[in-house]
Amino acid sequence: MKFQVSKSALVEAVSQVSKAVSSKTTIPILTGIQVIAHDQGLCFTGSNSDLTIQVNVPNQKEEQQQVTVEEMGNIVLPGRILGDIVRKLPGDQVTWETTEKFQTVIQSEQARFELIGLDPDEYPRLPHLTNRSSFTLHTDTLRTIIRQTQFAVSHDEAKMILTGVLWQLKQGKLTSIGTDGHRLARKQVDIEGSEDLFFEHVIIPGKSMAELAKTFNDSDGYVDIVVADNQLLVQNEHLEFYTRLIEGKYPNTDDFIPEDGQIEVICSTRDLLQSVDRASLISRGGRDHVIKWTIKDGIVEISSISQEIGKVTEQVKAQVSGEELSISFNPRYMMEALRSLDCEEVRLLFKGTMAPFTLRPKEYQDTLHLILPIRTH
Amino acid sequence: MKFQVSKSALVEAVSQVSKAVSSKTTIPILTGIQVIAHDQGLCFTGSNSDLTIQVNVPNQKEEQQQVTVEEMGNIVLPGRILGDIVRKLPGDQVTWETTEKFQTVIQSEQARFELIGLDPDEYPRLPHLTNRSSFTLHTDTLRTIIRQTQFAVSHDEAKMILTGVLWQLKQGKLTSIGTDGHRLARKQVDIEGSEDLFFEHVIIPGKSMAELAKTFNDSDGYVDIVVADNQLLVQNEHLEFYTRLIEGKYPNTDDFIPEDGQIEVICSTRDLLQSVDRASLISRGGRDHVIKWTIKDGIVEISSISQEIGKVTEQVKAQVSGEELSISFNPRYMMEALRSLDCEEVRLLFKGTMAPFTLRPKEYQDTLHLILPIRTH
Repeated sequence: MKFQVSKSALVEAVSQVSKAVSSKTTIPILTGIQVIAHDQGLCFTGSNSDLTIQVNVPNQKEEQQQVTVEEMGNIVLPGRILGDIVRKLPGDQVTWETTEKFQTVIQSEQARFELIGLDPDEYPRLPHLTNRSSFTLHTDTLRTIIRQTQFAVSHDEAKMILTGVLWQLKQGKLTSIGTDGHRLARKQVDIEGSEDLFFEHVIIPGKSMAELAKTFNDSDGYVDIVVADNQLLVQNEHLEFYTRLIEGKYPNTDDFIPEDGQIEVICSTRDLLQSVDRASLISRGGRDHVIKWTIKDGIVEISSISQEIGKVTEQVKAQVSGEELSISFNPRYMMEALRSLDCEEVRLLFKGTMAPFTLRPKEYQDTLHLILPIRTH
Repeated sequence: MKFQVSKSALVEAVSQVSKAVSSKTTIPILTGIQVIAHDQGLCFTGSNSDLTIQVNVPNQKEEQQQVTVEEMGNIVLPGRILGDIVRKLPGDQVTWETTEKFQTVIQSEQARFELIGLDPDEYPRLPHLTNRSSFTLHTDTLRTIIRQTQFAVSHDEAKMILTGVLWQLKQGKLTSIGTDGHRLARKQVDIEGSEDLFFEHVIIPGKSMAELAKTFNDSDGYVDIVVADNQLLVQNEHLEFYTRLIEGKYPNTDDFIPEDGQIEVICSTRDLLQSVDRASLISRGGRDHVIKWTIKDGIVEISSISQEIGKVTEQVKAQVSGEELSISFNPRYMMEALRSLDCEEVRLLFKGTMAPFTLRPKEYQDTLHLILPIRTH
């Protein structure tokens, strides 16, 4: 196996697949990155037990030669050190040669590394996808869905199902839901040409969702999303991102989400976020992480008391309709919801002191956050 | 106690003194920040067992009123939460009122915090300085001295003396030394008008040096340095920084530092640093963190071998005079020394395979780094 590659393409590919490589793995071969040289260019793969990232580096990019393969072949090299080495190579061009016994020489200008490789035959194959159905999403939409729902998943491994994000596709609409049992985030987007597709129980690990957003962070354009029995594949021309799915039954959240409420509050997202943030400074020092809202005519009064630290009160101007209401909840849930909303004004709907309440952008309906109140007496 | 203060001045003062406040202390009052309102303005103090930082905020700054004291007094408030609160206050002006029982109301626009204060009579007094001698340094020089010597101190609490930086003032020259027993960094600067001053055993804790650099990071102009029996004080118009000194006998390093050598190498600091950095990628994965240099006519050959990972070799062009030499050492020591030097070309002097060697800027003599080689057979 022998090839030349531009340093920037090599650095980019190794850096992308490194996101899937963990140094803490019980399977030694997975600490490595697989590199394949074939007649079309190079293929890099990194994997852990949950997700696999594959990057293709074609021979030519924008009519410039970036890879020249002299001899095809494949090899697995230790992932962390390979990443460090390629980033610090001195020149613009890199020569790569793997000889017998997996020994690999990487050279660039005056620097010459000889690395001990691992047997590529031991490297696992890509996940096999059965019962595939696929649709297309713009990367902007994909990132928004992840940003607006992934933060709400549970980090408690005992609630395995809730550590994932639920995806449902019905009647051309993709619904993404994250919840930890105390709050919930839901985002809906229309998927063009997907009217014939249907799934309602695709549960993607929250950590994979976070990596997925990072992997396509700099990508533009559309990605294909392939949903199979136990795997989700997200891909574009150069990148393939596989993640396992979580098995089990996700709770039915439809009955749980109130679509209306007797008390409506509309106010500036930014003002509200800053006030709740300040109130949380007092609450997080106390025993319970809780703040209190008193909703009156034209204002929301926000307060928090901690026996050790003291108290805080402030008022935020708001359009209020309905009766007066006092309600207590964890301010972190509201801050995370408000930060994920991309809207100047937010609309909140309340049913009562002990009922879950919702937050939505004032102008549209596709995003919803739900927070459970805390009983304070 | 009652005053108004501009938010920016309050944030700046609290942020500065917070550097000395530790949440991990066995003395509860030291988790607090002391605030004094007097007729000239405000005074903020933060302290831990090692260092104390005091910031004065005068009533006027550049002819603008920034503090208005209505009633003098003092109070101690929990440091971490005070920092968070003042940073997040909504307005430009802050009203502060401390009533009986140390209860303190901090208000800015619609936000109102009521904090439970601590008894200021319990707050320790500033260190008392005996046998003072003092001189003046530009803050640029102070930061350079710290940056070029502090990194070399030991982090091993069992070698207490070596966790400090040694300062000596003799014949108008300040010498600063840091060493961990394996490498040494020395910086010398001329101190104008200090010909009559003499001290040779001032040992400043390395951690205090790091905080000192941060504290005066944005300062310009000169600072007064006051050396007393057990304390060092660094101050300018607005800031006072006290640190305890380490007691005990610092080893005599003069006999240890070779001032010459038979083999001289001069080369680009940047090229050398990058090559050593690459070689260290292999060495740090191995059992011993060691790289090897072979110094020949016109080149330095840098190599490292790890049984698990592989090997690296590269050559750096250099002006070499003297015989051929092979020498092995810890690349981290050389990288830290090279990074701290502000010079395009570095001059290295060697005496032999097992003798300590030195690095200096090619053009001047005031900075010296010494590294002990490692026996590899």
